[in-house]
Amino acid sequence: MPAISDKGRQMPESPIRKLVPYAEEARKKGRKVYHLNIGQPDIKTPKVALDAVKNNTIEILEYSRSEGSEQYREKIAGYYKNKGIDVTAKEIIVTTGGSEALLFALGTVADYGDEVIIPEPFYANYNGFATASGVKVVPVVSSIENNFALPPIEEFEKLITPKTRAILICNPGNPTGYLYSREEIRKLAGIVKKHNLFLISDEVYREFVYDDLAHYSIMQEEGLEEHAIMIDSVSKRYSMCGARIGCFVSRNKEVITTALKFAQARLSSPTYAQIASEAALETPQSYFDEVSKEYVSRRNLLVSELEKIAGVRVAKPKGAFYCIAELPVKNTDDFAKWLLESFELNNETVMIAPAAGFYSTPGMGTNQVRIAYILKKEDLTAAMNILKEALEVYPGRETS
Amino acid sequence: MPAISDKGRQMPESPIRKLVPYAEEARKKGRKVYHLNIGQPDIKTPKVALDAVKNNTIEILEYSRSEGSEQYREKIAGYYKNKGIDVTAKEIIVTTGGSEALLFALGTVADYGDEVIIPEPFYANYNGFATASGVKVVPVVSSIENNFALPPIEEFEKLITPKTRAILICNPGNPTGYLYSREEIRKLAGIVKKHNLFLISDEVYREFVYDDLAHYSIMQEEGLEEHAIMIDSVSKRYSMCGARIGCFVSRNKEVITTALKFAQARLSSPTYAQIASEAALETPQSYFDEVSKEYVSRRNLLVSELEKIAGVRVAKPKGAFYCIAELPVKNTDDFAKWLLESFELNNETVMIAPAAGFYSTPGMGTNQVRIAYILKKEDLTAAMNILKEALEVYPGRETS
Ligand SMILES: Cc1ncc(COP(=O)(O)O)c(C=O)c1O
Ligand SMILES: Cc1ncc(COP(=O)(O)O)c(C=O)c1O
Repeated sequence: MPAISDKGRQMPESPIRKLVPYAEEARKKGRKVYHLNIGQPDIKTPKVALDAVKNNTIEILEYSRSEGSEQYREKIAGYYKNKGIDVTAKEIIVTTGGSEALLFALGTVADYGDEVIIPEPFYANYNGFATASGVKVVPVVSSIENNFALPPIEEFEKLITPKTRAILICNPGNPTGYLYSREEIRKLAGIVKKHNLFLISDEVYREFVYDDLAHYSIMQEEGLEEHAIMIDSVSKRYSMCGARIGCFVSRNKEVITTALKFAQARLSSPTYAQIASEAALETPQSYFDEVSKEYVSRRNLLVSELEKIAGVRVAKPKGAFYCIAELPVKNTDDFAKWLLESFELNNETVMIAPAAGFYSTPGMGTNQVRIAYILKKEDLTAAMNILKEALEVYPGRETS
Repeated sequence: MPAISDKGRQMPESPIRKLVPYAEEARKKGRKVYHLNIGQPDIKTPKVALDAVKNNTIEILEYSRSEGSEQYREKIAGYYKNKGIDVTAKEIIVTTGGSEALLFALGTVADYGDEVIIPEPFYANYNGFATASGVKVVPVVSSIENNFALPPIEEFEKLITPKTRAILICNPGNPTGYLYSREEIRKLAGIVKKHNLFLISDEVYREFVYDDLAHYSIMQEEGLEEHAIMIDSVSKRYSMCGARIGCFVSRNKEVITTALKFAQARLSSPTYAQIASEAALETPQSYFDEVSKEYVSRRNLLVSELEKIAGVRVAKPKGAFYCIAELPVKNTDDFAKWLLESFELNNETVMIAPAAGFYSTPGMGTNQVRIAYILKKEDLTAAMNILKEALEVYPGRETS
């Protein structure tokens, strides 16, 4: 029997997937499971996007252009202009989700064995894309004590080697909810320029920023033209994760030319999804205002409920729809399993994501979980009540 | 300015794309260009597939399962059963086009620097997927003299090294139109078993087989369970290239588990496209019969027209919708450019794909072109007439 590759063996399993069989078991027992473990919002997709697909008049469902249609890319450029980002259609490649844009970015900047520095905790699938690309993730620790702010630049500098090709950030952050300030972006700009690196910024949550804070994109930072690669996606913005459309943006011509070759090899992005995504750009501002209001009130509820539980510490998120909480348990992997296997309150339980999978340094985050506030408030309240009761009786509870 | 990666520099440009600007110039001059260079059929997508998307009732366009829905995979298994291939839903992963299935296959079986043997000429994007995966393509030459039949097994054996991980075939072949016989598949089975390799078979053209020949899949070959990986796609079968749905099929459990990790990292395949593809399975047999009849008559027309042109040699295809023709010119790259730049017959010209891009051995195929018979017969006749006239006046014509 031929052996699969080392790459295949090293491909990480999603830290959330491991728990799926336990959730299925719980459901089989007739238990209701509140899913706080995933980034799939319950928000409706804008009607204008859904209708565009329903009303399409396609007779031959053809390949589209590898980089996306001129018209759609022009409109994306218009969207960015409204956000204070000046890019042209030529600087945009339409991709199959932000996921594919991340793969293109790693392939464009790094070779096998090259290194990319990423503040941890980070979106777990960065590990998968890095492994698939043969790239080594070098984590720099950001910590719950200061809300997961940018680690000191000296910490990055310590990690830079001749193999370092880029720094990858997520802004606002999944799983931290942290929003980088202009000052922090400027510090990153300084270091990538000094060491001649790329700065890749995953901004798929750019629309989810609260408390009257403003999102500052790496594309707004002057002098970063040759260094900056922005990753974006329609998945969260319009609650259309199933479309699978994102984009890859850079002002560096060689970067675009190279990423385009990766795009050409896979021919094109899905056509129906591009129709939906182009139409989604017509979504009225009122949609975003409502969604934002909803997330702010969910976040406030979640954070205040978590703060009421003895022994729990939480980093208040400024953006996205996740937060990291520290629980009074030794190992949240075991705790999350136990919640699904052995606990119930009125026949209900919760599924949370153990945070260790969002760290690359072994042993980090073992007492943390990521909670997604993607459920309506009654459900969040119920879920937090379950968590509180569960922590009171959990045999593995740490007492301090 | 940071440098892009070696991988990025080595990513091949599509051999066809290079000619696109010339075609645009020709059109700007008011010339009609017959496109024989691409694999985008002019056949209508089945109504049942288009209607399913128009009538969808989605309100939240959610991520789907990474491996595709249980229901869709069950139906795909049913489709294969009808074709004499016995696989279960668990042995199938739904992918974003056959393209993504190919990437998953290379990532699953090969590491950086590993080798995959491919009979050339082959689908040019195999080069792109291999480069993206850090895999070395090792070509074994098949030749127009014997219609691009499987090269002798000794030729494969000569190329096997400790780094060889798989043999990749395309059946029926793009660009050759060659259909491997049961005998040939059996020979390949023998060699992969002997040397403990994987056999990856790209069968995206399985439905396009002519002259009452039967397609024999590697999945039908007994004893190959642990070795066989099949790549498939809805793109050509239902003329829905823009959907971007394909699948990855293997009975080797470890292979499926590993490929699934690649699938999980990118979350899911496009939802609308899965709706269309699932519905497409209801396409009546009459659709395929008509399409097949149409392609056979196009092929017959194309081959007989080509055979009439002095100095042209053509390998009669038994499947897919391409053929390779040898032209009486030294360099078909130059000739294809010249056709677009400098030739016209009644203000019309043709675009053909120089075949060198389908070879990996330098210098091979320089006097060959790939012609796709994806246009209706009047247009094919007109295009062949243009080719004939063009060859008569082409300054670079070889006289023998
Ligand atoms: C930080 C981050 N980046 C990228 C993605 C990928 O999203 P998609 O491929 O749906 O655009 C996600 C999805 O959850 C994410 O959280
Ligand atoms: C031989 C072969 N394999 C794979 C593909 C990829 O097709 P898709 O990604 O549309 O399924 C093509 C497309 O032309 C092809 O010709």
